[in-house]
This record gives sequence, C-alpha cells and structure tokens, in this order.
Amino acid sequence: MNSTTMNDTASTSSLDALARLAAVIESRKPANGGDPDKSYVARLLHKGPDAFLKKIGEEATEVVMAAKDADHGGDAGKILYEVADLWFHSMIALAHYGLTPAQVVAELERREGTSGIEEKALRKAQERDVNEKGPLP
Amino acid sequence: MNSTTMNDTASTSSLDALARLAAVIESRKPANGGDPDKSYVARLLHKGPDAFLKKIGEEATEVVMAAKDADHGGDAGKILYEVADLWFHSMIALAHYGLTPAQVVAELERREGTSGIEEKALRKAQERDVNEKGPLP
Amino acid sequence: MNSTTMNDTASTSSLDALARLAAVIESRKPANGGDPDKSYVARLLHKGPDAFLKKIGEEATEVVMAAKDADHGGDAGKILYEVADLWFHSMIALAHYGLTPAQVVAELERREGTSGIEEKALRKAQERDVNEKGPLP
Amino acid sequence: MNSTTMNDTASTSSLDALARLAAVIESRKPANGGDPDKSYVARLLHKGPDAFLKKIGEEATEVVMAAKDADHGGDAGKILYEVADLWFHSMIALAHYGLTPAQVVAELERREGTSGIEEKALRKAQERDVNEKGPLP
Repeated sequence: MNSTTMNDTASTSSLDALARLAAVIESRKPANGGDPDKSYVARLLHKGPDAFLKKIGEEATEVVMAAKDADHGGDAGKILYEVADLWFHSMIALAHYGLTPAQVVAELERREGTSGIEEKALRKAQERDVNEKGPLP
Repeated sequence: MNSTTMNDTASTSSLDALARLAAVIESRKPANGGDPDKSYVARLLHKGPDAFLKKIGEEATEVVMAAKDADHGGDAGKILYEVADLWFHSMIALAHYGLTPAQVVAELERREGTSGIEEKALRKAQERDVNEKGPLP
Repeated sequence: MNSTTMNDTASTSSLDALARLAAVIESRKPANGGDPDKSYVARLLHKGPDAFLKKIGEEATEVVMAAKDADHGGDAGKILYEVADLWFHSMIALAHYGLTPAQVVAELERREGTSGIEEKALRKAQERDVNEKGPLP
Repeated sequence: MNSTTMNDTASTSSLDALARLAAVIESRKPANGGDPDKSYVARLLHKGPDAFLKKIGEEATEVVMAAKDADHGGDAGKILYEVADLWFHSMIALAHYGLTPAQVVAELERREGTSGIEEKALRKAQERDVNEKGPLP
C-alpha cells in the first residue's frame, strides 16, 4: 500500500491516483521511516505543521496569481500546476492529521447529495452579496 | 451529465466523484444556463474570477486555522470540511478556465512518475531551509 | 533618503493616525463596552479570533488580486484600498492580543537598525532562489 | 536609535518611521541603483511582483498561525514579528506600484472620518453573518 513506485498499475481513476499519492505521503512520515534528508515530503512532515500549513497559504496565493494572469491573457495551463501544488500540500496536511483525500471527496459527495444545501448556501450568499466591501472601524 | 443528484450510482472512485462534481459545476456556467438566483456555484461564476479566487484565499486560511486548532487538541474532522471547501472552490476556478480535476490529478501523477524529482525538490528545499525567516530591508 | 513630502502638514503623523485608530479599535472591545450591534469592529472582536483572522487571509488575497490587475494595466489606486483593509484587520488582531501598531513599527525600526540583517537575509534568499518551485512527493 | 542610516533624527512618530522605511525601500528599486546581490529588498523588486506578492500571502498565513498559537497559550509577541513581516512586504508592493504607507494611513483616516461608515459596514456584516459557512455546489 505504501509503495514508493506508483505507476505500475493502470491508472483507472482519480480516486485511485489520489489514494496512491496518499500512500506515498503516508510512507514518508517519520514514524514510517521517512527520511528528511532524502524526501521533500518527509522533510515537511519532520519539520511539523507550520512548515506545510505555510505552504498551503503560499500555494493558494500562487493559484490566485496564475488565475489573474490567465484573466489577462496568460497561459491557463499554469493554473493546473498551481492547483496541483495546492492539493498536494493539502494532502500532506491531511496525512499528518490522519485524514485521507478519499474522505475529502466523500465530504464533497455528501454535500452534493444533501438536497436543499445549494439553496440554503445561495440564500446566505445573496445576503452576503450586498456587502463584499465593508468595514471601518 | 449535468444531473443534480449524483449519488444514485455506486461511488466507485474519487475520479468519478470529482468528475461528477466537475460536471455539476460545468452545468452552472452562465453559458450553460446556470442561474445565479438559484445556484451558489452559478452565482460565483456569474460574478467572475475575483469572487471565487477570493474564496480560495479565504478557504486556505480556514484550513490553516482548523489545523492549528487540531494541533492544540481540537477536532481534526474540521480540517476535512475546510479542505473540501478549498478543493471545491479550486474546482470552480478550474471550470472557469476550462480545466478539470482529472488534469490536476494527472499532473500529480506525472510528477510522481518523474524520477529524480523528489531528490531535486529536496535539495532546493534544504538550501531554502537555512532561511525560513529573513528579510529586512 | 529620497522621501517624498508627507510630513509637511500638521496631519501630525502616521503614528498618531495609527494610534488614534488603535484607540478606536480598543474602545470597541467587549470589555470596553463595544456593542456588536452598533460597530463592525466590536462585532468582529465579539465573534473572536477566527472571524478577524479569516479576514486577514481574505484581504491579503485581495491585495494580490488588485496588484495583479495593476500589473495588467488596472488602477493602482485599488491596491491602496486593499492594503488599508489588510492593515486595518491586522490592527484588530493586534488589539485582541494586547499589541499595538506602534510596536509593529518599532519592530520594523529595530530591524532597520540591526546592521548586517539585510546581508544575512539576502544570503538566505539567494540560497532559496535556486528553488522557488519544487516538490514531489 | 541603533541606526544604520535612517534613525539619525529623533523618532517622533510611526509615520516618520514608516516614511523612513519607505525611503529605504525606494532606494532599493532597480531604477535607483538597488543591487539584487546586496539587498533583500532590491532582490525582490528585481524579481518582480509575483515574488513579493507571494510573500504577502505567505506572511498573512504566518500571522494567522502565530495568532492561533497565542489563542492556545503561545507567546503573543510572535504575532508582532509576523505582522511586521506582513506590513513590510506590503510596503515593498506599495513602492513597486508608486504608492506610500502615508497614503494607506490617509485612507484609514479617511474612513474613520466618514460618519455613518461603520453603521453601513455593520449592517452588511450582519447580513453576511447568517452565513459564514455555506456552499455546495
């Protein structure tokens, strides 16, 4: 399960792919013998939460910058790269806290299936809409 | 394809689940008849990039806050919820720019398969390590 | 150095301005009688840290978006507005934790005065420079 | 104080201090002879907007992490350090776009002086309050 080579099976689905990546990340935990001198993931996990949480803030900013560039005629492909970075560092955090991408996907599915959710969210968002700009002081 | 109930099939995999969610988001685009008065996603897409990009920054911050709470004894389950929010708003951005979660997953797989990548990333990160705190001015 | 002009008016000074704003924020604390039904600041302080910390993440993202728009020909003036929002919400956080903008400014001055700091920061940043893009996995 | 070059006058106010720091940053611009090999600020300005904008997202995240630690018993002093980093990198962005911290402070003062502003902001925030958590999909 926590194999380090992961392309040996035909990639049938995203879940599978995310699960394989999660397994690699899991194998990089200090408790599983991950070596901070040999693996980027092991190193982040070894340094602790602030190291990878900071990256989540940074990568989110990079997604936003790539998207703004695309808005102005830049290559949208860069957004893919940055979203991959953002999801990847999210998965390091998930692993640290004993969570899996499958659970994230299940949460997304759960919401989809909850009838009325979208309407409720919309109503709230509409109320919020009046604002968008606010304070002081 | 753009069905609004999506749990009627056995949930076979994440890709499938992510693809289904992407299809729903796609159907919410203004060009596909998404109604900003009836759908949260349609409303964000109608408002334009700044609306959903801002949410990416906000949701990344919420992931970080939930993680810090978990570090200090809080419920790790909240992280799942916040990562789901972050990925969900990332997917709205992907849809707007004509991209798919399957492409993000493919990019993650591509990197995994690139031999030597981790070693190179690690070396760079080690160099960066000396620092972590810096400037002025 | 090549300062522009800004202290020539009796607008006494920024510190004064920041100190005045900090005093207003201080007066909005629940303990000082701030009324969440009458004041935006009182409301954020009443809701607790997550409410204003989330705003810091959101406003940082808005600074970035305004700057990217300016990069592509947009009005740079919007950046001012967003930086003001960012600093303002930072000041709400400072107040909550018993800190002041004067202390932030003092910290900035302290660094300036610390000889060698810039060189050290630079060296670290140069090491980091090699990278800027990295991981996996 | 323990100045290099810029504290030779009595530090009368924050505005003065911020103006001095802004002048130093201004002198680091490539057009003003700032040397990327000798100055951290010159290096960021030389690399261009994405370099310092990314730092704004990263430093905002660090403010949030330091604040959460303080919420859970950590040293609030760390928040000062992180807010100083956030404001500092904001000032690099301001300089790049031809703006000054004095203008940011003036914007903050303008809002304070605008009667009714807080009430309006509050009303909007109250509407938004119902929500805070929402979407899908």
